[in-house]
Amino acid sequence: MRASQFFIATQKEAPTDAELISHKLMVRAGLIKKLGNGLYSWMPLGLRVLRKVENIIRDEMNKAGALELLMPAVQPKELWDETGRWAVFGPQMLKIKDRHERDYCFGPTHEEVITDIVRREINSYRQLPLNFYQIQTKFRDEIRPRFGVMRAREFMMKDAYSFHTNFESLQKTYAQMYQTYSNIFTRLGLKFRAVKADSGAIGGDGSQEFHVLTDSGEDALAYCENSDYAANVELAEALPPTSTRAPSSNAMREVETPKQTVCEDVAKLLGISIEHTVKAIALIAKDEFYLALLRGDHNLNEVKVGKLAGLSEFRFATEEEIRANLNCPPGFIGPVGLSKSVTVIADRAVTQMSDFVCGANKPKYHLSNVNFGRDLPEPSLVADIRNVVEGDASPDGKGKLSLCRGIEVGHIFQLRTKYAKAMNATFLDESGQSQVMEMGCYGIGVSRIVGAAIEQGSDEKGIIFPLSMAPFEVVICSIGMDKSELVKNTANQLYEDFKKASIDVLLDDRGERPGVMFAESDLMGIPHRIVLGERGLAEGKVEYKARSASAAQNLLVIDIINFIKSAMND
Amino acid sequence: MRASQFFIATQKEAPTDAELISHKLMVRAGLIKKLGNGLYSWMPLGLRVLRKVENIIRDEMNKAGALELLMPAVQPKELWDETGRWAVFGPQMLKIKDRHERDYCFGPTHEEVITDIVRREINSYRQLPLNFYQIQTKFRDEIRPRFGVMRAREFMMKDAYSFHTNFESLQKTYAQMYQTYSNIFTRLGLKFRAVKADSGAIGGDGSQEFHVLTDSGEDALAYCENSDYAANVELAEALPPTSTRAPSSNAMREVETPKQTVCEDVAKLLGISIEHTVKAIALIAKDEFYLALLRGDHNLNEVKVGKLAGLSEFRFATEEEIRANLNCPPGFIGPVGLSKSVTVIADRAVTQMSDFVCGANKPKYHLSNVNFGRDLPEPSLVADIRNVVEGDASPDGKGKLSLCRGIEVGHIFQLRTKYAKAMNATFLDESGQSQVMEMGCYGIGVSRIVGAAIEQGSDEKGIIFPLSMAPFEVVICSIGMDKSELVKNTANQLYEDFKKASIDVLLDDRGERPGVMFAESDLMGIPHRIVLGERGLAEGKVEYKARSASAAQNLLVIDIINFIKSAMND
Repeated sequence: MRASQFFIATQKEAPTDAELISHKLMVRAGLIKKLGNGLYSWMPLGLRVLRKVENIIRDEMNKAGALELLMPAVQPKELWDETGRWAVFGPQMLKIKDRHERDYCFGPTHEEVITDIVRREINSYRQLPLNFYQIQTKFRDEIRPRFGVMRAREFMMKDAYSFHTNFESLQKTYAQMYQTYSNIFTRLGLKFRAVKADSGAIGGDGSQEFHVLTDSGEDALAYCENSDYAANVELAEALPPTSTRAPSSNAMREVETPKQTVCEDVAKLLGISIEHTVKAIALIAKDEFYLALLRGDHNLNEVKVGKLAGLSEFRFATEEEIRANLNCPPGFIGPVGLSKSVTVIADRAVTQMSDFVCGANKPKYHLSNVNFGRDLPEPSLVADIRNVVEGDASPDGKGKLSLCRGIEVGHIFQLRTKYAKAMNATFLDESGQSQVMEMGCYGIGVSRIVGAAIEQGSDEKGIIFPLSMAPFEVVICSIGMDKSELVKNTANQLYEDFKKASIDVLLDDRGERPGVMFAESDLMGIPHRIVLGERGLAEGKVEYKARSASAAQNLLVIDIINFIKSAMND
Repeated sequence: MRASQFFIATQKEAPTDAELISHKLMVRAGLIKKLGNGLYSWMPLGLRVLRKVENIIRDEMNKAGALELLMPAVQPKELWDETGRWAVFGPQMLKIKDRHERDYCFGPTHEEVITDIVRREINSYRQLPLNFYQIQTKFRDEIRPRFGVMRAREFMMKDAYSFHTNFESLQKTYAQMYQTYSNIFTRLGLKFRAVKADSGAIGGDGSQEFHVLTDSGEDALAYCENSDYAANVELAEALPPTSTRAPSSNAMREVETPKQTVCEDVAKLLGISIEHTVKAIALIAKDEFYLALLRGDHNLNEVKVGKLAGLSEFRFATEEEIRANLNCPPGFIGPVGLSKSVTVIADRAVTQMSDFVCGANKPKYHLSNVNFGRDLPEPSLVADIRNVVEGDASPDGKGKLSLCRGIEVGHIFQLRTKYAKAMNATFLDESGQSQVMEMGCYGIGVSRIVGAAIEQGSDEKGIIFPLSMAPFEVVICSIGMDKSELVKNTANQLYEDFKKASIDVLLDDRGERPGVMFAESDLMGIPHRIVLGERGLAEGKVEYKARSASAAQNLLVIDIINFIKSAMND
């Protein structure tokens, strides 16, 4: 592509509503243009990136034997009523009435539509398994769209749905999709992790998320450096401590803590480490009063608490409820001297503590040298109720956990029979019996990937795209093309040579100043830059610089195509 | 693609709501699947066809220097208010409210969105001209969707929009798009015509439609066999007659026509040709009473009448109005002996008639041997108010007109400044003055093309696709692959050879009976069929049949790749 015939529209200012670097850079580089709240146009430069991502996904899905189709964006309510999701999906679903006042939605996902197709097309076990996918526009009416394309309302998604005669077949395709997703994100040049996940609103059993790792990610993840283990922090198990509890020493005593209501301040006042304090959190579930105990530096994990028997609908106690049950204001409450109506839930880490500090259930006082079995009963209920922290043992026993943040770009689910049962998607098995199909689904946020890649690759000059999704692979900046025949001819020749070698090249023939050309190609994230000037060419040389490198180098014109080819294969 | 790994789902029965052959065959061949009223899923087989059409369009648009982008389907009302189209577009526009009760639509077209982008991106004449396009999903809420994808509510469209500093530049791009469209439809292998058109709701000045020619088309067209001239019948001009009026003969006289109220019956009763009768049609406009005169075999063209001064809002007179003005019921009215309050409009063809028959303005009577100048005054108003008929002179003077029917698949418009003015899309010209942009727009109904192609190519066995858009170019039907090593090995070898030659091949390895394989590949419209059987292969031969040919022929296995290659280039 010649820049003079392309549309390059970079801008100096980032939009005022942009918080993330990817959002700022995508607008500044002219990849996208905002149309409305959570609505973006993909400009010619951005669409080149999006299409490269699409094509890699399509290629790997095809290799895995999945079949591409294309379902409508607009879906009739009747199908969603069959699964009951019309009522439960909530305001994220964009509902529409047509001219005849019939109900439709702008599809946020396509389980109902594909299940309807399959139940009408498939009769026999001989026709299964099948795996259909599409790359198609979705709409989810986010209450607060933000982060540019990362959390837009209208977005591009690859969604796949597989159908099976039995669970084993589903598991096989699920494993194949896991591998396919790994191939896709590897080819895209992204640092990513597959993590265990809660399956949320889509429903079903096994499920894993694929996250692009970056500090700006919305999700907190825990992973093991020595193994494949990774999980959302909310789901990562904190194993029981392996060391035994140290014996108690001095007798328990009251300490005055006039203004210290949190463990950190209490530890500071007493000159002890926070790891020797215990915090107590008052909870209510089914009118029962609970006191959850955690080490002072640990945080309560509400997902884990909600999974305990009787606590699925727990809430935090109000100040009034705390005063009524403990006769003490929040900030000084603790597990010693409780009435029988209070149930203690101790986190696993707490059970290993001795000589600890906790609230005294007396305003402005804490207790020190507290010990289970001596000063208070051993806790009746011990459970994993905290978030893991850096350095915790990995649940797979293969080392320690590290924490990071990630952006979810893919999600694979074993839906099992949830949809097939609700919609009566059945087949006849080998003995002629009607059976409900097993089903899986596999999503990738196609447009989100572009944002995530930029979160992972940028510097103060702009985007650093992986080669696989860069809008152009090489830019030729020609200086003085209008004045020098040598520059003009060499630039045109190199441009044709690159095209012949199937290298995606941009020839900057606009006659802009070198500073402008360099700044724009850096902002757009083009991986390889070649600069042609009369002086260098007189010696048969051009300047080459990789976008990610700090320095440029001189190369012979005659070597440049092969040099770039080999650089692209690195 | 191996058929065993593909999804082939043909069916015997056409849907009961299908009127057109393309709709029936697309469902029967398994190209599409109905989701709801005017909503279709493109199944894997159909999507292959759609993508081939898309790719040819994309390739030719790129060659013409147009730049692809992708705008959202969901568009905010505010932009449509700027052009006033929110109010006037009518119920075809699918209106949506989001969770915050703000108004949007599912875009039926994108003039407002692209003009908004351009007014914010373009400042200077140096940045123009520009031509942007997208291939994207549109929705138009047709009151009665039908004909499958031909008049679906959700459909795929290629829409392009060009912006210019002046009309000359617009005309240049318009001419280039005319050529591009001709290239596209030629490459798609379609019989088509570009015709002059009324520009309808989109507005603007010059406009041409591209029609695929087929008897089942919704639009009636007139064209000249000897030239490029073509127009919607409603717009084709009927030239004034070139021969002079013959002299009158016998005196006018009354003839009794007791039950004959239409020209055809009167002519039959009197034993004369219908070309010697004149029909009178009573019209009302602005409370004036008009009598339009046409030759008996000609039809009134309401578009042409509406363009006459004072008649833009004409309507047909009621029976009461006819009786009040002519003192006669409809069926016997005519132009003789009128009061001065009646204005006669004579079609050009009528002015040349002599000794004609017309209504007598007396119940159950007509007049014969009527002559202008003698029996009634020469008509005060002569105009072209009829539809052209087969054999009329072509308005370009290059021969005679033929009539045919067509399906509109493309439309190019010179919008001029309609949108740019309303939305204040301006640029600074060479002298620093602010000027409003000139604008063109260029649409192609991508999904509709597939239906139109099938209307043009089918037989009793199924679809006959042009090579350019066939789901597969070649099918290999292998008979007894499971029993014969020779068949299996040759089939696999040929399959690999075709793939190596970049020929899009389907290997039917499902083990179906030959009759089933042949019927399905004929139904799907695959242009080239090769049949492998043990007996033929023993002699080194395979059977070849073109989809459009009636007979098969035997060819040597070793020649087959080159044979198909050369057949594809024909």
